[in-house]
Amino acid sequence: MDGALYDNPEFLERYIQFPRQQLGLAGAPEWPDLRRLLPPLDDTSILDLGCGFGWFSRWAADQGARRVVGIDVSDRMLERASADTQTTAVEYRRGDLAELALGDERFDVAFSSLAFHYLSDVAELFRTVHTALRPGGWLVFSAEHPVMTAPTTLNAIEHGGREVWPLDRYCDEGPRLRTWLVDGVEKYHRTVGTWVNSVLGAGFDLRQLIEWGPSDDQVVANPAWSIEQHRPPFLLLSAQARGQ
Amino acid sequence: MDGALYDNPEFLERYIQFPRQQLGLAGAPEWPDLRRLLPPLDDTSILDLGCGFGWFSRWAADQGARRVVGIDVSDRMLERASADTQTTAVEYRRGDLAELALGDERFDVAFSSLAFHYLSDVAELFRTVHTALRPGGWLVFSAEHPVMTAPTTLNAIEHGGREVWPLDRYCDEGPRLRTWLVDGVEKYHRTVGTWVNSVLGAGFDLRQLIEWGPSDDQVVANPAWSIEQHRPPFLLLSAQARGQ
Repeated sequence: MDGALYDNPEFLERYIQFPRQQLGLAGAPEWPDLRRLLPPLDDTSILDLGCGFGWFSRWAADQGARRVVGIDVSDRMLERASADTQTTAVEYRRGDLAELALGDERFDVAFSSLAFHYLSDVAELFRTVHTALRPGGWLVFSAEHPVMTAPTTLNAIEHGGREVWPLDRYCDEGPRLRTWLVDGVEKYHRTVGTWVNSVLGAGFDLRQLIEWGPSDDQVVANPAWSIEQHRPPFLLLSAQARGQ
Repeated sequence: MDGALYDNPEFLERYIQFPRQQLGLAGAPEWPDLRRLLPPLDDTSILDLGCGFGWFSRWAADQGARRVVGIDVSDRMLERASADTQTTAVEYRRGDLAELALGDERFDVAFSSLAFHYLSDVAELFRTVHTALRPGGWLVFSAEHPVMTAPTTLNAIEHGGREVWPLDRYCDEGPRLRTWLVDGVEKYHRTVGTWVNSVLGAGFDLRQLIEWGPSDDQVVANPAWSIEQHRPPFLLLSAQARGQ
């Protein structure tokens, strides 16, 4: 991930307007489903990879986690995360997930929300995380869904009187330059199969895979989300580390 | 699966024109990748679910399988399968995968090619198959990819000077009536997540998930396949039965 992006004032000013940055987990419509993938957190030690403003780290401490290490590449996000955090159970560290080094400490859960699709090599990251987890430890994350990361263009179109998603380049894995709040944001497209096989290959057993789209009630409350039922925006995945 | 479809003379006459029915496994472009998901077959016992004309059953016997049980709902396909099969290692049985009953016999491998997307309840099928496999036994199958089974219409369209796939209804699981050689063919759409979670929930560990699209060389040789790189036609999956 490019630290400069989240430290870019123009980007950050727009980014903090998102409901999920204003409201935290309650502003993320996929959160109830992502939360259900987590094991009980009482007395656990947790990695929060790409912790941003620390919403999840603080929530995990509130759930009884003994220790939470939140890692992010953005100095400005970590500053606010620290300012917003009272509990000493949470420690924030500056770190780039593309070059993650975790030392000898072992954790029970590694969590990440919408950060991994910035990485060119998730297989390497998953191996690093596996090493940092105790046997049976959990990896739970969300990422942009491949039908979101694949296409040349990211706008729904009308076809035959219906709203459809112009999918292309699904099998063509690699970087995509996007305009997202600012121009030139680099994200990486990989297939669902590659996400899953990278997790398995790093020594995890897959536990659940959810392609998240909004419920009918959520679309009624937010009509602009209708396209998200046609192509799910997020992939949610849980896995457990096999013994080494 | 509706046995009447494959016993319908109009359907069958067109169906047998497909390269994969004329040439067998060699006519199926995904076969080399599907084959790589299989364990060594020497001295194994195998279920071939939706065996059709028996191409895989005979191939498995050639690979040294001790016993192959090919199951299909179509009398006409089983007649030709039997006529084309010399080895006594293969036994064909008439059976509907939607009501599969396998008795007490235990197998090492359950295989299926492009049959399961006709079933309304794959979770039930996977549980039945799990019971019929020895611990560590393999489930290896292909099915139509969810980006193929989801949409309202199944033709590529042009958008912005490019060929794109008009994806819609991905999150809306359930039956789809298709015109495929004949009108009124019922297939079932489920997400990749539901395919995977149904396998896991039946007692399997996932081993590999491949979203198959043609290689660049295959598209050069078959230019009409270009859309298949934009939306993969097949899902290939391998899993192993956990002990009970």
